Amino acid sequence: MAPKVKAVIFDIFGTLVDWRGSIAAEIGKSLSLKGIKLDPFELADAWRGEYQPAMDRVRSGKRGYVPLDDLHLENLGVVLKRFALENRFDLAERMALNSAWERLQPWPDTVPGLMQLRKTHIVAPCSNGSIALMTRLARFGGLHFDAILGADIARSYKPRPEVYLRSAAALRLEPGQVMMVAAHNEDLEAAAACGLKTAFIARPLEYGPARAHEAEPSGNWDIVCTDVGNLADRLPDRI
Amino acid sequence: MAPKVKAVIFDIFGTLVDWRGSIAAEIGKSLSLKGIKLDPFELADAWRGEYQPAMDRVRSGKRGYVPLDDLHLENLGVVLKRFALENRFDLAERMALNSAWERLQPWPDTVPGLMQLRKTHIVAPCSNGSIALMTRLARFGGLHFDAILGADIARSYKPRPEVYLRSAAALRLEPGQVMMVAAHNEDLEAAAACGLKTAFIARPLEYGPARAHEAEPSGNWDIVCTDVGNLADRLPDRI
Repeated sequence: MAPKVKAVIFDIFGTLVDWRGSIAAEIGKSLSLKGIKLDPFELADAWRGEYQPAMDRVRSGKRGYVPLDDLHLENLGVVLKRFALENRFDLAERMALNSAWERLQPWPDTVPGLMQLRKTHIVAPCSNGSIALMTRLARFGGLHFDAILGADIARSYKPRPEVYLRSAAALRLEPGQVMMVAAHNEDLEAAAACGLKTAFIARPLEYGPARAHEAEPSGNWDIVCTDVGNLADRLPDRI
Repeated sequence: MAPKVKAVIFDIFGTLVDWRGSIAAEIGKSLSLKGIKLDPFELADAWRGEYQPAMDRVRSGKRGYVPLDDLHLENLGVVLKRFALENRFDLAERMALNSAWERLQPWPDTVPGLMQLRKTHIVAPCSNGSIALMTRLARFGGLHFDAILGADIARSYKPRPEVYLRSAAALRLEPGQVMMVAAHNEDLEAAAACGLKTAFIARPLEYGPARAHEAEPSGNWDIVCTDVGNLADRLPDRI
Protein backbone atom coordinates (compact mmCIF):
# COMPACT_ATOMS: atom_id res chain seq x y z
CA MET A 1 0.00 0.00 0.00
CA ALA A 2 1.29 3.43 -0.89
CA PRO A 3 2.03 5.64 2.13
CA LYS A 4 -0.75 8.07 2.91
CA VAL A 5 0.00 11.76 2.47
CA LYS A 6 0.43 13.37 5.91
CA ALA A 7 1.87 16.74 4.92
CA VAL A 8 1.27 19.13 2.03
CA ILE A 9 4.11 21.53 1.25
CA PHE A 10 3.71 24.51 -1.01
CA ASP A 11 5.65 26.56 -3.44
CA ILE A 12 4.84 30.14 -2.49
CA PHE A 13 5.81 32.74 -5.13
CA GLY A 14 3.19 32.45 -7.85
CA THR A 15 1.51 29.39 -6.36
CA LEU A 16 0.00 30.86 -3.17
CA VAL A 17 0.71 34.58 -3.60
CA ASP A 18 0.66 37.08 -6.47
CA TRP A 19 4.27 38.27 -6.31
CA ARG A 20 4.06 40.25 -9.56
CA GLY A 21 1.06 42.41 -8.76
CA SER A 22 2.27 42.98 -5.19
CA ILE A 23 5.85 43.90 -6.12
CA ALA A 24 4.71 46.14 -8.98
CA ALA A 25 2.34 47.96 -6.63
CA GLU A 26 5.15 48.70 -4.14
CA ILE A 27 7.55 49.72 -6.91
CA GLY A 28 4.83 51.92 -8.38
CA LYS A 29 4.38 53.76 -5.06
CA SER A 30 8.10 54.26 -4.77
CA LEU A 31 8.55 55.52 -8.36
CA SER A 32 5.60 57.83 -8.02
CA LEU A 33 7.02 59.41 -4.82
CA LYS A 34 10.23 60.11 -6.70
CA GLY A 35 8.45 61.37 -9.81
CA ILE A 36 10.02 58.63 -11.97
CA LYS A 37 7.92 57.68 -14.99
CA LEU A 38 8.54 54.00 -15.63
CA ASP A 39 6.22 50.99 -15.87
CA PRO A 40 6.40 49.31 -12.43
CA PHE A 41 5.52 45.94 -13.98
CA GLU A 42 8.58 46.20 -16.20
CA LEU A 43 10.78 46.68 -13.14
CA ALA A 44 9.00 43.89 -11.24
CA ASP A 45 9.59 41.49 -14.15
CA ALA A 46 13.22 42.57 -14.46
CA TRP A 47 13.72 42.03 -10.69
CA ARG A 48 12.15 38.58 -10.86
CA GLY A 49 14.23 37.90 -13.98
CA GLU A 50 17.37 37.93 -11.82
CA TYR A 51 15.89 35.36 -9.44
CA GLN A 52 16.92 32.13 -11.18
CA PRO A 53 20.40 33.31 -12.26
CA ALA A 54 21.18 34.42 -8.68
CA MET A 55 20.08 31.08 -7.25
CA ASP A 56 21.96 29.22 -9.98
CA ARG A 57 25.23 30.53 -8.55
CA VAL A 58 24.32 28.93 -5.22
CA ARG A 59 22.94 25.71 -6.76
CA SER A 60 26.10 25.21 -8.80
CA GLY A 61 28.30 25.75 -5.75
CA LYS A 62 29.93 28.92 -7.15
CA ARG A 63 28.95 30.57 -3.90
CA GLY A 64 27.75 29.22 -0.57
CA TYR A 65 24.16 29.44 0.61
CA VAL A 66 22.95 33.03 0.72
CA PRO A 67 19.34 33.58 1.88
CA LEU A 68 16.93 34.85 -0.73
CA ASP A 69 16.46 38.15 1.16
CA ASP A 70 20.08 39.01 0.34
CA LEU A 71 19.84 37.79 -3.25
CA HIS A 72 16.74 39.94 -3.73
CA LEU A 73 18.63 42.99 -2.48
CA GLU A 74 21.60 42.30 -4.76
CA ASN A 75 19.24 41.72 -7.68
CA LEU A 76 17.46 45.00 -6.99
CA GLY A 77 20.81 46.74 -7.33
CA VAL A 78 21.36 45.07 -10.72
CA VAL A 79 17.94 46.16 -11.94
CA LEU A 80 18.21 49.74 -10.67
CA LYS A 81 21.51 50.06 -12.48
CA ARG A 82 20.02 48.69 -15.69
CA PHE A 83 17.27 51.31 -15.53
CA ALA A 84 19.83 54.04 -14.66
CA LEU A 85 18.22 54.45 -11.23
CA GLU A 86 21.18 53.43 -9.07
CA ASN A 87 21.61 56.96 -7.72
CA ARG A 88 17.93 57.42 -6.93
CA PHE A 89 17.66 54.75 -4.19
CA ASP A 90 19.96 54.72 -1.17
CA LEU A 91 20.52 51.59 0.91
CA ALA A 92 17.67 52.33 3.34
CA GLU A 93 15.27 52.83 0.42
CA ARG A 94 16.48 49.66 -1.26
CA MET A 95 15.98 47.70 1.95
CA ALA A 96 12.48 49.14 2.36
CA LEU A 97 11.63 48.15 -1.21
CA ASN A 98 13.22 44.73 -0.69
CA SER A 99 10.88 44.10 2.23
CA ALA A 100 8.00 44.19 -0.28
CA TRP A 101 8.70 40.47 -0.73
CA GLU A 102 7.34 40.05 2.81
CA ARG A 103 4.03 41.65 1.79
CA LEU A 104 2.73 39.63 -1.15
CA GLN A 105 -1.02 39.30 -1.61
CA PRO A 106 -2.36 35.75 -1.43
CA TRP A 107 -4.51 34.58 -4.33
CA PRO A 108 -8.17 34.73 -3.23
CA ASP A 109 -8.49 30.97 -2.64
CA THR A 110 -5.24 30.61 -0.66
CA VAL A 111 -6.27 31.52 2.89
CA PRO A 112 -9.59 29.61 3.02
CA GLY A 113 -8.03 26.67 1.15
CA LEU A 114 -5.12 26.36 3.59
CA MET A 115 -7.52 26.63 6.52
CA GLN A 116 -9.54 23.72 5.15
CA LEU A 117 -6.49 21.62 4.31
CA ARG A 118 -4.90 22.20 7.71
CA LYS A 119 -7.76 20.32 9.36
CA THR A 120 -6.57 17.05 7.85
CA HIS A 121 -2.90 17.62 6.91
CA ILE A 122 0.27 19.31 8.10
CA VAL A 123 0.78 22.34 5.83
CA ALA A 124 4.05 24.19 5.30
CA PRO A 125 5.83 26.26 2.68
CA CYS A 126 8.62 24.59 0.73
CA SER A 127 9.86 27.77 -0.85
CA ASN A 128 13.15 29.30 -1.86
CA GLY A 129 12.30 32.10 0.56
CA SER A 130 14.03 32.12 3.95
CA ILE A 131 12.36 31.31 7.26
CA ALA A 132 12.38 35.05 8.01
CA LEU A 133 10.75 35.92 4.69
CA MET A 134 8.14 33.15 4.87
CA THR A 135 7.31 33.98 8.50
CA ARG A 136 6.57 37.61 7.69
CA LEU A 137 4.78 36.81 4.43
CA ALA A 138 2.53 34.34 6.25
CA ARG A 139 1.73 36.87 8.97
CA PHE A 140 1.00 39.57 6.38
CA GLY A 141 -1.31 37.40 4.29
CA GLY A 142 -2.95 35.45 7.11
CA LEU A 143 -1.58 32.12 5.90
CA HIS A 144 -1.62 29.62 8.75
CA PHE A 145 1.24 27.16 8.36
CA ASP A 146 2.31 24.48 10.84
CA ALA A 147 6.03 24.95 10.17
CA ILE A 148 8.33 26.76 7.76
CA LEU A 149 10.35 24.41 5.54
CA GLY A 150 12.30 24.92 2.31
CA ALA A 151 15.58 26.56 1.35
CA ASP A 152 16.79 27.65 4.81
CA ILE A 153 16.34 24.14 6.21
CA ALA A 154 18.38 22.62 3.38
CA ARG A 155 20.70 25.60 2.83
CA SER A 156 20.13 25.13 -0.89
CA TYR A 157 17.59 26.12 -3.51
CA LYS A 158 14.88 24.22 -5.35
CA PRO A 159 14.90 22.33 -7.60
CA ARG A 160 17.94 20.78 -5.85
CA PRO A 161 16.72 17.45 -4.40
CA GLU A 162 17.95 18.16 -0.86
CA VAL A 163 15.35 20.91 -0.44
CA TYR A 164 12.47 18.46 -0.89
CA LEU A 165 14.17 15.62 0.98
CA ARG A 166 15.20 17.72 3.99
CA SER A 167 11.72 19.24 4.17
CA ALA A 168 10.18 15.76 4.41
CA ALA A 169 12.89 14.64 6.85
CA ALA A 170 12.30 17.68 9.09
CA LEU A 171 8.76 16.37 9.57
CA ARG A 172 10.10 12.81 10.05
CA LEU A 173 8.06 11.66 7.07
CA GLU A 174 8.95 9.50 4.11
CA PRO A 175 9.02 11.42 0.80
CA GLY A 176 5.91 9.53 -0.32
CA GLN A 177 4.00 10.85 2.70
CA VAL A 178 4.53 14.42 1.54
CA MET A 179 2.83 16.20 -1.35
CA MET A 180 4.48 19.12 -3.13
CA VAL A 181 2.07 21.70 -4.59
CA ALA A 182 3.20 24.18 -7.23
CA ALA A 183 2.08 26.12 -10.27
CA HIS A 184 5.40 25.23 -11.93
CA ASN A 185 6.05 21.93 -13.63
CA GLU A 186 9.80 22.06 -13.00
CA ASP A 187 9.24 22.21 -9.24
CA LEU A 188 6.95 19.18 -9.38
CA GLU A 189 9.33 17.24 -11.64
CA ALA A 190 12.11 17.65 -9.07
CA ALA A 191 9.80 16.75 -6.17
CA ALA A 192 8.50 13.66 -7.96
CA ALA A 193 12.07 12.54 -8.69
CA CYS A 194 12.63 12.60 -4.90
CA GLY A 195 9.57 10.42 -4.35
CA LEU A 196 7.14 13.11 -3.20
CA LYS A 197 3.54 13.18 -4.30
CA THR A 198 2.64 16.12 -6.54
CA ALA A 199 -0.24 18.53 -7.15
CA PHE A 200 -0.40 21.16 -9.87
CA ILE A 201 -2.44 24.34 -9.52
CA ALA A 202 -2.68 26.48 -12.63
CA ARG A 203 -1.98 30.16 -11.98
CA PRO A 204 -2.27 31.58 -15.48
CA LEU A 205 -2.11 35.17 -14.20
CA GLU A 206 1.25 34.79 -12.42
CA TYR A 207 3.03 36.80 -15.14
CA GLY A 208 0.06 39.02 -15.91
CA PRO A 209 -2.83 38.71 -18.35
CA ALA A 210 -0.62 39.27 -21.41
CA ARG A 211 1.68 36.33 -20.72
CA ALA A 212 -0.10 33.07 -19.98
CA HIS A 213 2.54 31.05 -18.16
CA GLU A 214 2.64 27.34 -17.54
CA ALA A 215 -1.10 27.26 -17.27
CA GLU A 216 -1.00 23.62 -18.34
CA PRO A 217 0.34 20.69 -16.37
CA SER A 218 3.06 18.95 -18.36
CA GLY A 219 3.62 15.91 -16.15
CA ASN A 220 1.64 13.02 -14.77
CA TRP A 221 0.94 14.73 -11.43
CA ASP A 222 -1.03 12.96 -8.72
CA ILE A 223 -3.58 15.76 -8.61
CA VAL A 224 -4.30 18.63 -10.99
CA CYS A 225 -6.51 21.11 -9.19
CA THR A 226 -8.12 24.45 -9.82
CA ASP A 227 -7.23 26.04 -6.47
CA VAL A 228 -6.21 25.22 -2.88
CA GLY A 229 -9.78 24.56 -1.77
CA ASN A 230 -10.21 22.12 -4.64
CA LEU A 231 -7.03 20.36 -3.50
CA ALA A 232 -8.36 20.15 0.07
CA ASP A 233 -11.66 18.73 -1.18
CA ARG A 234 -9.98 16.00 -3.16
CA LEU A 235 -6.88 15.05 -1.20
CA PRO A 236 -8.26 13.03 1.74
CA ASP A 237 -10.23 10.69 -0.51
CA ARG A 238 -7.70 10.33 -3.24
CA ILE A 239 -4.34 9.55 -1.70
CA MET B 1 17.94 53.21 22.14
CA ALA B 2 17.59 49.52 22.87
CA PRO B 3 16.22 47.50 19.95
CA LYS B 4 12.53 46.80 20.24
CA VAL B 5 11.46 43.20 20.73
CA LYS B 6 9.99 41.87 17.46
CA ALA B 7 9.81 38.15 18.23
CA VAL B 8 9.04 36.12 21.34
CA ILE B 9 10.41 32.60 21.43
CA PHE B 10 9.31 30.01 23.95
CA ASP B 11 10.63 27.09 25.83
CA ILE B 12 7.92 24.44 25.45
CA PHE B 13 8.26 21.52 27.88
CA GLY B 14 7.07 22.82 31.23
CA THR B 15 6.73 26.43 30.08
CA LEU B 16 3.82 26.13 27.61
CA VAL B 17 2.73 22.52 28.12
CA ASP B 18 2.34 20.14 31.05
CA TRP B 19 4.65 17.35 29.92
CA ARG B 20 4.49 15.48 33.23
CA GLY B 21 0.74 15.15 33.53
CA SER B 22 0.37 14.33 29.84
CA ILE B 23 3.11 11.72 29.72
CA ALA B 24 1.96 10.10 32.98
CA ALA B 25 -1.58 9.86 31.60
CA GLU B 26 -0.38 8.04 28.45
CA ILE B 27 1.92 5.75 30.45
CA GLY B 28 -0.94 5.06 32.84
CA LYS B 29 -3.22 3.94 29.99
CA SER B 30 -0.50 1.71 28.63
CA LEU B 31 0.35 0.11 31.99
CA SER B 32 -3.30 -0.45 32.75
CA LEU B 33 -3.89 -2.24 29.41
CA LYS B 34 -1.03 -4.59 30.29
CA GLY B 35 -2.15 -5.05 33.91
CA ILE B 36 1.11 -3.60 35.25
CA LYS B 37 0.76 -2.00 38.67
CA LEU B 38 3.26 0.86 38.79
CA ASP B 39 2.91 4.59 39.45
CA PRO B 40 2.85 6.24 36.00
CA PHE B 41 4.24 9.47 37.47
CA GLU B 42 7.28 7.56 38.68
CA LEU B 43 7.92 6.32 35.14
CA ALA B 44 7.26 9.76 33.66
CA ASP B 45 9.79 11.32 36.04
CA ALA B 46 12.33 8.59 35.32
CA TRP B 47 11.87 9.11 31.56
CA ARG B 48 12.32 12.86 31.89
CA GLY B 49 15.30 12.19 34.19
CA GLU B 50 17.21 10.79 31.21
CA TYR B 51 16.53 13.95 29.16
CA GLN B 52 19.47 16.12 30.24
CA PRO B 53 22.09 13.30 30.33
CA ALA B 54 21.10 12.23 26.79
CA MET B 55 21.40 15.80 25.47
CA ASP B 56 24.68 16.27 27.36
CA ARG B 57 26.29 13.66 25.14
CA VAL B 58 25.32 15.76 22.10
CA ARG B 59 26.22 19.10 23.71
CA SER B 60 29.66 17.83 24.67
CA GLY B 61 30.29 16.54 21.15
CA LYS B 62 30.48 12.88 22.27
CA ARG B 63 27.89 12.19 19.60
CA GLY B 64 26.57 14.20 16.68
CA TYR B 65 23.17 15.87 16.66
CA VAL B 66 20.38 13.35 17.21
CA PRO B 67 16.82 14.73 17.22
CA LEU B 68 15.01 14.59 20.53
CA ASP B 69 12.45 12.11 19.14
CA ASP B 70 15.25 9.55 18.90
CA LEU B 71 16.72 10.43 22.29
CA HIS B 72 13.27 10.03 23.86
CA LEU B 73 12.96 6.55 22.35
CA GLU B 74 16.40 5.52 23.57
CA ASN B 75 15.63 6.93 27.01
CA LEU B 76 12.37 5.01 27.14
CA GLY B 77 14.38 1.84 26.59
CA VAL B 78 16.67 2.75 29.52
CA VAL B 79 13.69 3.36 31.79
CA LEU B 80 11.78 0.24 30.80
CA LYS B 81 14.88 -1.82 31.55
CA ARG B 82 15.30 -0.15 34.94
CA PHE B 83 11.70 -1.07 35.83
CA ALA B 84 12.20 -4.62 34.46
CA LEU B 85 9.65 -3.94 31.72
CA GLU B 86 11.93 -4.32 28.71
CA ASN B 87 10.16 -7.47 27.56
CA ARG B 88 6.68 -6.00 27.97
CA PHE B 89 6.93 -3.34 25.23
CA ASP B 90 7.93 -4.20 21.66
CA LEU B 91 9.29 -1.57 19.26
CA ALA B 92 5.86 -0.63 17.87
CA GLU B 93 4.52 -0.13 21.40
CA ARG B 94 7.56 1.92 22.38
CA MET B 95 7.14 4.11 19.33
CA ALA B 96 3.46 4.60 20.10
CA LEU B 97 4.33 5.59 23.68
CA ASN B 98 7.14 7.82 22.43
CA SER B 99 4.66 9.75 20.29
CA ALA B 100 3.00 10.89 23.55
CA TRP B 101 5.52 13.75 23.48
CA GLU B 102 3.55 15.06 20.48
CA ARG B 103 0.36 15.20 22.57
CA LEU B 104 1.18 17.34 25.59
CA GLN B 105 -1.61 19.43 27.13
CA PRO B 106 -1.02 23.18 27.08
CA TRP B 107 -1.33 25.01 30.39
CA PRO B 108 -4.73 26.75 30.45
CA ASP B 109 -3.33 30.23 29.68
CA THR B 110 -1.10 29.11 26.79
CA VAL B 111 -3.45 29.11 23.80
CA PRO B 112 -5.27 32.40 24.53
CA GLY B 113 -2.00 34.05 25.59
CA LEU B 114 -0.21 33.09 22.37
CA MET B 115 -3.19 34.26 20.33
CA GLN B 116 -3.01 37.68 22.01
CA LEU B 117 0.77 37.93 21.72
CA ARG B 118 0.76 36.94 18.06
CA LYS B 119 -1.16 40.10 17.19
CA THR B 120 1.88 42.23 18.01
CA HIS B 121 4.87 39.87 17.84
CA ILE B 122 6.28 36.95 15.89
CA VAL B 123 5.91 33.89 18.14
CA ALA B 124 7.85 30.63 17.81
CA PRO B 125 9.08 27.76 19.93
CA CYS B 126 12.77 27.69 20.81
CA SER B 127 12.70 24.19 22.20
CA ASN B 128 14.96 21.18 22.29
CA GLY B 129 12.17 19.35 20.47
CA SER B 130 12.56 18.77 16.74
CA ILE B 131 10.59 20.55 14.02
CA ALA B 132 8.57 17.35 13.62
CA LEU B 133 7.79 17.13 17.32
CA MET B 134 6.95 20.83 17.71
CA THR B 135 4.78 20.80 14.57
CA ARG B 136 2.65 17.93 15.86
CA LEU B 137 2.55 19.24 19.43
CA ALA B 138 1.37 22.64 18.18
CA ARG B 139 -1.35 21.06 16.05
CA PHE B 140 -2.48 18.85 18.94
CA GLY B 141 -2.69 21.69 21.45
CA GLY B 142 -3.93 24.41 19.10
CA LEU B 143 -0.81 26.55 19.58
CA HIS B 144 -0.49 28.97 16.68
CA PHE B 145 3.18 29.67 15.99
CA ASP B 146 4.61 31.68 13.10
CA ALA B 147 7.64 29.41 12.65
CA ILE B 148 9.36 26.50 14.39
CA LEU B 149 12.83 27.39 15.70
CA GLY B 150 15.14 25.73 18.23
CA ALA B 151 17.32 22.63 18.30
CA ASP B 152 16.74 21.36 14.73
CA ILE B 153 17.66 24.74 13.26
CA ALA B 154 20.93 24.83 15.20
CA ARG B 155 21.53 21.07 15.27
CA SER B 156 22.42 21.45 18.93
CA TYR B 157 20.66 21.63 22.28
CA LYS B 158 19.91 24.46 24.68
CA PRO B 159 21.52 25.91 26.67
CA ARG B 160 24.24 25.92 23.98
CA PRO B 161 24.44 29.51 22.66
CA GLU B 162 24.05 28.59 19.00
CA VAL B 163 20.45 27.49 19.60
CA TYR B 164 19.41 31.00 20.70
CA LEU B 165 21.62 32.79 18.17
CA ARG B 166 20.54 30.69 15.18
CA SER B 167 16.90 31.09 16.16
CA ALA B 168 17.25 34.89 16.12
CA ALA B 169 19.29 34.75 12.90
CA ALA B 170 16.66 32.56 11.19
CA LEU B 171 14.25 35.47 11.70
CA ARG B 172 16.92 37.94 10.56
CA LEU B 173 16.72 39.71 13.91
CA GLU B 174 19.40 40.92 16.29
CA PRO B 175 19.50 38.95 19.56
CA GLY B 176 18.21 42.02 21.41
CA GLN B 177 15.10 42.05 19.21
CA VAL B 178 14.15 38.59 20.45
CA MET B 179 12.76 37.64 23.85
CA MET B 180 13.21 34.14 25.29
CA VAL B 181 10.43 32.96 27.59
CA ALA B 182 10.92 30.05 29.97
CA ALA B 183 9.98 28.65 33.35
CA HIS B 184 13.62 27.67 33.86
CA ASN B 185 16.28 30.09 35.02
CA GLU B 186 19.11 28.18 33.31
CA ASP B 187 17.44 28.62 29.91
CA LEU B 188 17.09 32.37 30.47
CA GLU B 189 20.67 32.72 31.75
CA ALA B 190 21.96 31.22 28.51
CA ALA B 191 19.64 33.35 26.37
CA ALA B 192 20.63 36.54 28.22
CA ALA B 193 24.32 35.70 27.75
CA CYS B 194 23.61 35.69 23.99
CA GLY B 195 22.02 39.13 24.20
CA LEU B 196 18.37 38.06 24.07
CA LYS B 197 15.70 39.68 26.21
CA THR B 198 14.20 37.38 28.84
CA ALA B 199 10.85 36.65 30.47
CA PHE B 200 10.25 34.23 33.33
CA ILE B 201 6.92 32.47 33.86
CA ALA B 202 6.62 30.49 37.06
CA ARG B 203 5.20 27.01 36.52
CA PRO B 204 5.31 25.65 40.07
CA LEU B 205 3.31 22.54 39.08
CA GLU B 206 5.70 21.38 36.36
CA TYR B 207 7.00 18.55 38.56
CA GLY B 208 3.73 17.99 40.38
CA PRO B 209 2.24 19.48 43.53
CA ALA B 210 4.68 17.68 45.82
CA ARG B 211 7.80 19.17 44.24
CA ALA B 212 7.72 22.93 43.80
CA HIS B 213 10.33 23.53 41.12
CA GLU B 214 12.06 26.77 40.23
CA ALA B 215 8.93 28.68 41.07
CA GLU B 216 11.12 31.70 41.76
CA PRO B 217 13.05 33.75 39.24
CA SER B 218 16.73 33.75 40.16
CA GLY B 219 18.00 36.32 37.65
CA ASN B 220 17.38 39.89 36.70
CA TRP B 221 14.98 39.02 33.88
CA ASP B 222 13.39 41.74 31.75
CA ILE B 223 9.90 40.55 32.64
CA VAL B 224 8.63 38.22 35.35
CA CYS B 225 5.07 37.30 34.51
CA THR B 226 2.32 35.13 35.87
CA ASP B 227 1.26 33.58 32.55
CA VAL B 228 1.41 34.08 28.76
CA GLY B 229 -1.52 36.49 28.73
CA ASN B 230 0.17 38.59 31.38
CA LEU B 231 3.30 38.66 29.20
CA ALA B 232 1.23 39.77 26.21
CA ASP B 233 -0.41 42.51 28.28
CA ARG B 234 2.90 43.92 29.43
CA LEU B 235 5.32 43.38 26.56
CA PRO B 236 4.29 46.06 24.03
CA ASP B 237 4.50 48.87 26.60
CA ARG B 238 7.58 47.69 28.36
CA ILE B 239 10.22 46.85 25.81
